Amino acid sequence: MAEERRSGQERWFELDRLVAYSDGVFAIAMTLLVLTLEAPDLHGSDINGQLRRYLFDQWPEFFGFVLSFVIVGRYWIAHHRLFQVVRRTDPTFIALNLVLLFFVVLLPYPTELFGDYPSTRVAVIFYSAALTVTGLSMTALGHYAGQNHRLVDEAVSDGYITHSLLRGLSIPVAFALAIPVAFIDVDIAKYVWLTIIPMRFYFKRRYGPIHEPFEE
Amino acid sequence: MAEERRSGQERWFELDRLVAYSDGVFAIAMTLLVLTLEAPDLHGSDINGQLRRYLFDQWPEFFGFVLSFVIVGRYWIAHHRLFQVVRRTDPTFIALNLVLLFFVVLLPYPTELFGDYPSTRVAVIFYSAALTVTGLSMTALGHYAGQNHRLVDEAVSDGYITHSLLRGLSIPVAFALAIPVAFIDVDIAKYVWLTIIPMRFYFKRRYGPIHEPFEE
Amino acid sequence: MAEERRSGQERWFELDRLVAYSDGVFAIAMTLLVLTLEAPDLHGSDINGQLRRYLFDQWPEFFGFVLSFVIVGRYWIAHHRLFQVVRRTDPTFIALNLVLLFFVVLLPYPTELFGDYPSTRVAVIFYSAALTVTGLSMTALGHYAGQNHRLVDEAVSDGYITHSLLRGLSIPVAFALAIPVAFIDVDIAKYVWLTIIPMRFYFKRRYGPIHEPFEE
Amino acid sequence: MAEERRSGQERWFELDRLVAYSDGVFAIAMTLLVLTLEAPDLHGSDINGQLRRYLFDQWPEFFGFVLSFVIVGRYWIAHHRLFQVVRRTDPTFIALNLVLLFFVVLLPYPTELFGDYPSTRVAVIFYSAALTVTGLSMTALGHYAGQNHRLVDEAVSDGYITHSLLRGLSIPVAFALAIPVAFIDVDIAKYVWLTIIPMRFYFKRRYGPIHEPFEE
Repeated sequence: MAEERRSGQERWFELDRLVAYSDGVFAIAMTLLVLTLEAPDLHGSDINGQLRRYLFDQWPEFFGFVLSFVIVGRYWIAHHRLFQVVRRTDPTFIALNLVLLFFVVLLPYPTELFGDYPSTRVAVIFYSAALTVTGLSMTALGHYAGQNHRLVDEAVSDGYITHSLLRGLSIPVAFALAIPVAFIDVDIAKYVWLTIIPMRFYFKRRYGPIHEPFEE
Repeated sequence: MAEERRSGQERWFELDRLVAYSDGVFAIAMTLLVLTLEAPDLHGSDINGQLRRYLFDQWPEFFGFVLSFVIVGRYWIAHHRLFQVVRRTDPTFIALNLVLLFFVVLLPYPTELFGDYPSTRVAVIFYSAALTVTGLSMTALGHYAGQNHRLVDEAVSDGYITHSLLRGLSIPVAFALAIPVAFIDVDIAKYVWLTIIPMRFYFKRRYGPIHEPFEE
Repeated sequence: MAEERRSGQERWFELDRLVAYSDGVFAIAMTLLVLTLEAPDLHGSDINGQLRRYLFDQWPEFFGFVLSFVIVGRYWIAHHRLFQVVRRTDPTFIALNLVLLFFVVLLPYPTELFGDYPSTRVAVIFYSAALTVTGLSMTALGHYAGQNHRLVDEAVSDGYITHSLLRGLSIPVAFALAIPVAFIDVDIAKYVWLTIIPMRFYFKRRYGPIHEPFEE
Repeated sequence: MAEERRSGQERWFELDRLVAYSDGVFAIAMTLLVLTLEAPDLHGSDINGQLRRYLFDQWPEFFGFVLSFVIVGRYWIAHHRLFQVVRRTDPTFIALNLVLLFFVVLLPYPTELFGDYPSTRVAVIFYSAALTVTGLSMTALGHYAGQNHRLVDEAVSDGYITHSLLRGLSIPVAFALAIPVAFIDVDIAKYVWLTIIPMRFYFKRRYGPIHEPFEE
């Protein structure tokens, strides 16, 4: 029985560290996004006017910063919700989690490129692709854990798992759709990203708000 | 009963992760402030004299660094005090917390601009505005949690909640006041920031020192 | 007995903090790797074409980024697995852990040099040497803890400890082998790194997959 | 009694968060030190030879990086040891801890200046002063907590507290001594830093090795 207890503690510790580590990576990647905002190097007269124009012209960088922040935030919440129902880990799950963290860590780079070159096709596609694969790796992680309750608490309903996965797909679907569109028109591609909003709205109408995993 | 216990653990875990994640973001944003201090690139003779003058001329950057550090520190303490009495989370609370973290993450950027252009109106206004919205989102978070004890422990008195919110408002009020003043005179605006000190003093005289939430 | 319990808590706290601190350093070093990817400063016509070529030419930086990420990830997992069985700490163990963290912290620098100068002998050797010493300090940490079960749970078998140490050696061995090879041919040295893959394969065939420490 | 228990949990939570937050700041400041190592921008022929010379010439940067890393590491251990015996917090303690964290966060900047200008008096003095005040704020924190067992476990002996404080003073004393020396000779000042080693040695001979706080 002491054996039992220690073993349980072991597993909890393992899961706990995985969560803490992931949180650390999410938090740092999120905070490093601010480094994509570059201060100007102004000279000459009317520094005030120059700085005002600089900040106005910097709006694509702000937009990229905000968008990436919101998306990392949403993925963190999704990760948070997933780990609320996860009860065990295994090597594949840890590896899939590292794949997700890899794309989260990468994110400041496409964000910077998009902020610097907001109307350039390659930058828009790179950014869209980065967010697509981040989303897909989050979905893969959730799918792996949830499949036949592999790592998820037995008390969680299948409906809850499927619902969560489908909801989570809205971000990668919107960014994946933007890639072919960007080949036709770069500016329209950015509007495609906004389809996240109606998709979430549809989900809410169709399936209701998020409910607690154990109250179904 | 096992169900009960797990559910309680769940919620604790959820709150715990939110706290750990927020702490991570606060700690990283606070530490990234040091990147606003740029090392010089000196050449020629009398490097020692050049470096001494450089460091003296850098005092606005040091001032911005110290001020932002102190303010992030104060918000971290406020966040800390709030979460001491919070017992539950909900999606709105998590979203409001992310809004607060967004402004905390942004802070190194206006700090850098202010350090680089300490006498430029736009930089002073941008910095003041950033600190105002950071403070207001902290207040919004506390207000949402405290309103009718929505997420706060029932044992906490209404007086304690109101007191905390009012105290917390002193920072955003001082920085908000500085914005219109900066349109008239940039240097006076910076003195307006210092009204934080008499405001805190007034609060202490009027309402006494901070007391423990559960001892009232 | 109260004394006993507190003392136990003490030790757990000490171990817990060491784990959390190490996790923090691993997570930050891993995330800072993204700063080795530099955004270009493009001017003139056909920005889109320039950016596409820039990103293609940047593949060594991506390769270095991915490789370092994967290796930090593997070391984090190894650290994680080690601390699952560690039950006590002592000053030497804490010092050895700091040595490991030192090399983990250093890693973004050789990664950046390798990404910038992927065909330059000195950069390849520096990168290989950095990964060798990181691996050796991980091994030293595990060896110190495991030797006669100095800090490791008594229930863990000697076979498990030896197995873990040998498996962990595959990374530093591959990178150490690459150093003399780089003196002869820089490009072949990079293929030597890939011997990690057959080495791991051999280990799996010879000793079977990783097993849980307490199930032997 | 439920009241009692919650209150105890409260305090533990408060202390726990303070530790986790401090650890985060220590870990990030330590990891950011790597950013003081700058990759070169090489052009022309014999890149390999240029890079080799660059890395050799970079030794003061490596030295500063290693020295700051070791000292942050030592302070982290000292912080760790202090919090092992701390049982309560109060607002002054939290403020003193923030002062310590401020100097820890600042450290990458003097480290960078020293690495860039290793023979320049101002850089050596700035670096020495930064490490002196960091050490003194660590001592102030420990002194405040330990004085009449204000926040420290009653079971801890006065001898242990005094011993820890005196040991901890060796770093700031060595760096403080280097400041006047640097006004006479910059290079000798750097040797003064090394008096840390005989001081630690003397302490070990005089008072014996560090012992566990509760075993005296």
